[in-house]
Amino acid sequence: MPTNKSIPRDRAAYTFWTPVSIRFSDQDPMEHVNNVAITAFLESGRVGLFGHIFADTRLPSKGIVLARLTVDYLHEITFPGSVEVGGMLAAAGDRSMTTHYAIFQGDTCCVVSESVNVFFDPVTRRSTAPSAEIRAVLEQTLSGHSR
Amino acid sequence: MPTNKSIPRDRAAYTFWTPVSIRFSDQDPMEHVNNVAITAFLESGRVGLFGHIFADTRLPSKGIVLARLTVDYLHEITFPGSVEVGGMLAAAGDRSMTTHYAIFQGDTCCVVSESVNVFFDPVTRRSTAPSAEIRAVLEQTLSGHSR
Amino acid sequence: MPTNKSIPRDRAAYTFWTPVSIRFSDQDPMEHVNNVAITAFLESGRVGLFGHIFADTRLPSKGIVLARLTVDYLHEITFPGSVEVGGMLAAAGDRSMTTHYAIFQGDTCCVVSESVNVFFDPVTRRSTAPSAEIRAVLEQTLSGHSR
Amino acid sequence: MPTNKSIPRDRAAYTFWTPVSIRFSDQDPMEHVNNVAITAFLESGRVGLFGHIFADTRLPSKGIVLARLTVDYLHEITFPGSVEVGGMLAAAGDRSMTTHYAIFQGDTCCVVSESVNVFFDPVTRRSTAPSAEIRAVLEQTLSGHSR
Repeated sequence: MPTNKSIPRDRAAYTFWTPVSIRFSDQDPMEHVNNVAITAFLESGRVGLFGHIFADTRLPSKGIVLARLTVDYLHEITFPGSVEVGGMLAAAGDRSMTTHYAIFQGDTCCVVSESVNVFFDPVTRRSTAPSAEIRAVLEQTLSGHSR
Repeated sequence: MPTNKSIPRDRAAYTFWTPVSIRFSDQDPMEHVNNVAITAFLESGRVGLFGHIFADTRLPSKGIVLARLTVDYLHEITFPGSVEVGGMLAAAGDRSMTTHYAIFQGDTCCVVSESVNVFFDPVTRRSTAPSAEIRAVLEQTLSGHSR
Repeated sequence: MPTNKSIPRDRAAYTFWTPVSIRFSDQDPMEHVNNVAITAFLESGRVGLFGHIFADTRLPSKGIVLARLTVDYLHEITFPGSVEVGGMLAAAGDRSMTTHYAIFQGDTCCVVSESVNVFFDPVTRRSTAPSAEIRAVLEQTLSGHSR
Repeated sequence: MPTNKSIPRDRAAYTFWTPVSIRFSDQDPMEHVNNVAITAFLESGRVGLFGHIFADTRLPSKGIVLARLTVDYLHEITFPGSVEVGGMLAAAGDRSMTTHYAIFQGDTCCVVSESVNVFFDPVTRRSTAPSAEIRAVLEQTLSGHSR
C-alpha cells in the first residue's frame, strides 16, 4: 500500500494546531470515524492554519480554494474524544500553496495529508496570482521552518 | 498546480456509475459544494463499485477499508441537481486495490480521484490477503478493461 | 412516546416530492441512517418545496430561514437506496410558514416532520413580513389543498 | 412563530455540558452554521448526557434510539469557535425518556431542543422496557433536579 512518506508524522514538524471534537455522527457502521468526517477535520486544520499564516494580511475573504487533497489513513480514529490537527506550509508556487497535516488522537498519528490550495478571485471565480504582500508572507513562513 | 493526469476524465473509461443527489447542506459559504461533501459522493461511488465487482463473491461484510484517497477538484459543483460518480478498478496488489473515479455534473468532469483500499479482517482489525476467489475476480475485472 | 399525529403519513397529502439518494456515510454504528442525515434529507425536501411554491415570485435569495423543526422517527431508514421526501404547505402566519414532510423508503413512511420557517431580511438578518405577492401565493397554495 | 417555552434557556437548569468545536463545513451559503450541523451538536450533547446518567449501569450498548426531536433555532451560530451543549433529563415514561438541551455560543442561548428517546432491544430492533436498575437511575436523576 503506497503512503506519502514525505509528510511528517512527528508533532514537532507542525507549526499550528487545531483541536476538533469528534461527534457521534462522525462514525459509520465500522464503528470508527468515517473518512468523510476526517476530511472535515482536515479542513478545520487548514482554515486554522491559513488564518494563522495570513492573520496580518489583506488576503481577500474567500480568496483561497482547495485544488487537491491527499489523505493517508494510518490508524482508526474512534469516538468519543477529540483530535488535534497539526498544519504547516510545505511549499509555495506561483498561484498555489502546498500544506501538510497530521491528525493525532492522543499519541497516535492517525492521518497524514497534503493539500494544494490555489489563490482565487471570488469575482471571476478563477485562480489568480497572490499579491506581493501575500507572497512575502509565504516566503517568510517557509524560511522560518528551515531556521 | 499539480493534478493527477493518469486518472481518466472521459466517461468511457468508467465501468460503474452511481448517481448522487446534491443536498442544500452540501454547500458552504463559497456557494458551491464543499470538498467534504465531495468525499461523501466519492464514497458512494466506491461502495457502489465494490458492490458491483464483488456481487457474486463471499467477500466478508466490512472486509474493505480505505487506506489512501487523492482528490483533484477541477470544477465547482453547484446546488441544486445531482452528480454521477463513475468508478473503475485500476490495479490490484497483494492486500490492496487501486480504484479511479470521476464525478460529472452534466457534461463537466468536476473531480477525479484515486483510492487505495485494503482488504481488512474485521475481527483482528488488520489488513489481510484476500481469498483466491476475490483475487480471481480482481484479475478478471482488470483483464476485462484491456479487452 | 408522543408523536405528532397531525402530520399526514399518506403520500396523497403531499404536493411536492424530492428524491434523495442515501450515502454510505449517512449511516452510524447502529447500521441505519443517522438522525443527522435525516435532517439533511428534510432540508432537501424543504428547499425543493419552497422552490416549487415560489418559482414565479420575486422572493429574495436567502429570504427564508428555519426557526423550528420537529422530527418523528417512525421506522429505520437503511443504506443502500434512496428516499422520497414529500412536502406541503400546512399554514401561513404573519411572518412565517408551517410546512409538513414525510420521508418514504419504498412503501414505508419512516419519518414525519414539521418545520416553521420565517421570512428573513438578509441585510438586517432579522425576520420580516413577506411582500403582498408572496402572501398571495401562500393563500393560493393553501386554498388549493382544500379544493 | 411558535417556540417551545418550556425548555429552559438559562445555563443553571442543565446538569451536563458537552463542548463541540464548529467546523468550516458546518456552514452553509447563509454564512452561518447550517441546521443539519446543529442536530449533530445536539446528538453530541445527548450522547454525552446519556453517558453521564448511565455511567454506572449495565445499559446495553446501542440500547437507546431517538424517536422524536424538536429544535428551536433562536440565534445564528457562526464559525469559527465552539459551542457548549447543556443537557438534562426532563421526564421518564414506561419505555422512553424526554431530555432538554440548550446550545450556547458565548453568552447567547442559540438553540433549545427536546428529544424523546426510547429504550431499544438491539436484537429485535424494537422498543423495550428498561431494566429495574435503569428505571431506578432515571427516578434518582429526576428527583435530584427538584432537591
